[in-house]
Amino acid sequence: MSSITRRSLGVALSAVAASGVVGLPRPAAADSSPALPSWNDGPAKQAILDFVRRVTTSGGPDFVAPEDRIATFDQDGTLWVEQPVYAQAMFALERVRALAPSHPEWKSQDPFAAVLSGDLAQVAHFSEKDWTEIVGVTHAGMSNQDFQGLVKRWLETARHPRFERKYTDLVYQPMREVMDHLRANGFRTYIVTGGGQEFVRAFAQAVYGVPPEQVVGSSIATRYELKDGKPELMRLPKVFFVDDRDGKAIGINLFIGKRPYAAFGNSGGDREMLQWTGAGDGARLRMLVHHDDPAREYAYGPAGGLPDSKVGTFPDELMTEAKAGGWTVVSMKEDWKRVFATD
Amino acid sequence: MSSITRRSLGVALSAVAASGVVGLPRPAAADSSPALPSWNDGPAKQAILDFVRRVTTSGGPDFVAPEDRIATFDQDGTLWVEQPVYAQAMFALERVRALAPSHPEWKSQDPFAAVLSGDLAQVAHFSEKDWTEIVGVTHAGMSNQDFQGLVKRWLETARHPRFERKYTDLVYQPMREVMDHLRANGFRTYIVTGGGQEFVRAFAQAVYGVPPEQVVGSSIATRYELKDGKPELMRLPKVFFVDDRDGKAIGINLFIGKRPYAAFGNSGGDREMLQWTGAGDGARLRMLVHHDDPAREYAYGPAGGLPDSKVGTFPDELMTEAKAGGWTVVSMKEDWKRVFATD
Repeated sequence: MSSITRRSLGVALSAVAASGVVGLPRPAAADSSPALPSWNDGPAKQAILDFVRRVTTSGGPDFVAPEDRIATFDQDGTLWVEQPVYAQAMFALERVRALAPSHPEWKSQDPFAAVLSGDLAQVAHFSEKDWTEIVGVTHAGMSNQDFQGLVKRWLETARHPRFERKYTDLVYQPMREVMDHLRANGFRTYIVTGGGQEFVRAFAQAVYGVPPEQVVGSSIATRYELKDGKPELMRLPKVFFVDDRDGKAIGINLFIGKRPYAAFGNSGGDREMLQWTGAGDGARLRMLVHHDDPAREYAYGPAGGLPDSKVGTFPDELMTEAKAGGWTVVSMKEDWKRVFATD
Repeated sequence: MSSITRRSLGVALSAVAASGVVGLPRPAAADSSPALPSWNDGPAKQAILDFVRRVTTSGGPDFVAPEDRIATFDQDGTLWVEQPVYAQAMFALERVRALAPSHPEWKSQDPFAAVLSGDLAQVAHFSEKDWTEIVGVTHAGMSNQDFQGLVKRWLETARHPRFERKYTDLVYQPMREVMDHLRANGFRTYIVTGGGQEFVRAFAQAVYGVPPEQVVGSSIATRYELKDGKPELMRLPKVFFVDDRDGKAIGINLFIGKRPYAAFGNSGGDREMLQWTGAGDGARLRMLVHHDDPAREYAYGPAGGLPDSKVGTFPDELMTEAKAGGWTVVSMKEDWKRVFATD
């Protein structure tokens, strides 16, 4: 992978030192700021640093009380890779294959037949109804606890088809540094994802340092049941809440009840979250990750696009709105020294 | 009110000193523990103190990491008075009266006609459908922000029919001290209420020190709308989530994603929350406030009961389950030195 060739000893050393794992003295940084070491100097990095300085300057006009320092992050495509298929969709497809021996009828029954025959072109065009059927058999019929166990085990073994690494190794290091910088300045960092809330909770603490109560996501209904006198929450094949597009603003109010001061996304699904964030007074940071780096990751959105992909759409209108509204667009290619923590 | 006569100078002084408002030296306490000054010594107070000591004893068998120290509190009847009618229901009834001039048809249309004619016997027997209609016109058709403004203004002017005080003055001081003691020991205190989430958020920070993100409640659906380019969340006359009975366990998982170590309730609506709390390993505190004090507050549940009331039911089966399961039942009459912060 070309990204390997971009790795420099200096960056690797800074990351190790910043992680606190070893006690080496921090190498003299070429960069004047110790925060955001995987970011190139430029307007995006500057926007983050300026915003944090403004809202934490005691007595300043944009000071925000620590209890109101809320930042929200989309996950797929903003914190980790979402191409060529969402990790959660890969999980669902592999669950279908694992469950197939108990469901011989699936061989001749779409959408399952398409999954089992490996017809990825057809999978790429699955309708919402197809996905609802697949989620129904792969995400329901078990307790939340059992479901999280399945997700954790899957994440240990699954490998991304292009990068051949665990999905949790394909987290964007620069975004992790943004989370760290915000938290070091009193922010609470929430994930606000169109993906499944319990799916993301299964790894958010370990991978992002984000606890379950700070994961807002889509969910299916659950039913309270006593099994041998012990209560369980059983997952039902029924959508409860869709935390995407307008649902992200609704979900932020429902789960947090405070307006974020900073919000990070990468697609049309994050538009309302950024609008909602920007509608408050004072300094607000709204940021979109633009995937324009086919060598190290992917290119899609206004600069490229994978016509067959159903994910990560970044329509031209979004870029127009971002520019008109003073949102910050991050160029993965220009702004990020490295992409993955494991590069 | 008889409760006034129970107030002692000593208790009042301890409360002032504990509040930190004045710098007086703390009077020598008759009580060996500075925590929970409004509690009489007894098994309930001891259960709280023992539980907190166990889960905070570093290296002990029941130690709980600070990030997992979650306590959940029912509101109506557990943190403040719920008799003779929930405050939120009073708010709704008064909103109907305030809106009536614009709705002349209500004079002959139930359930509104019953409200406007002041027929409280009929109101006490309103069906769920009646209340849904009333909530539809009093809680919807405005933004969340405007709704919270209405609630705040109402709380400033409304008075409880018996105590003739603001509802926010009818918070149980002993429970406030439990919240304080838990928070002083690293717990996060959540309200988990069958009442409206946005209704309670309107005052939870000021009254209980509980921020919006720690209020889990029932909710109606909202719609994201741009008004003059500015986004608003408009409240719809449609139930979204009922945070009561099984809904409390579901809501705790949905909003917090961690199992509480302590849970406090007072009625059958809190049963599943306490069961869910107790199903975890280690030390768990489950507590029910028993209203057995008609002189200072009310008596209902197994020891008394207001047959016409639809609220605060504490069925005999709940007392049986509490005793069998090692839950702690708080006798308001025996365990509390005083009831209200303003006594």
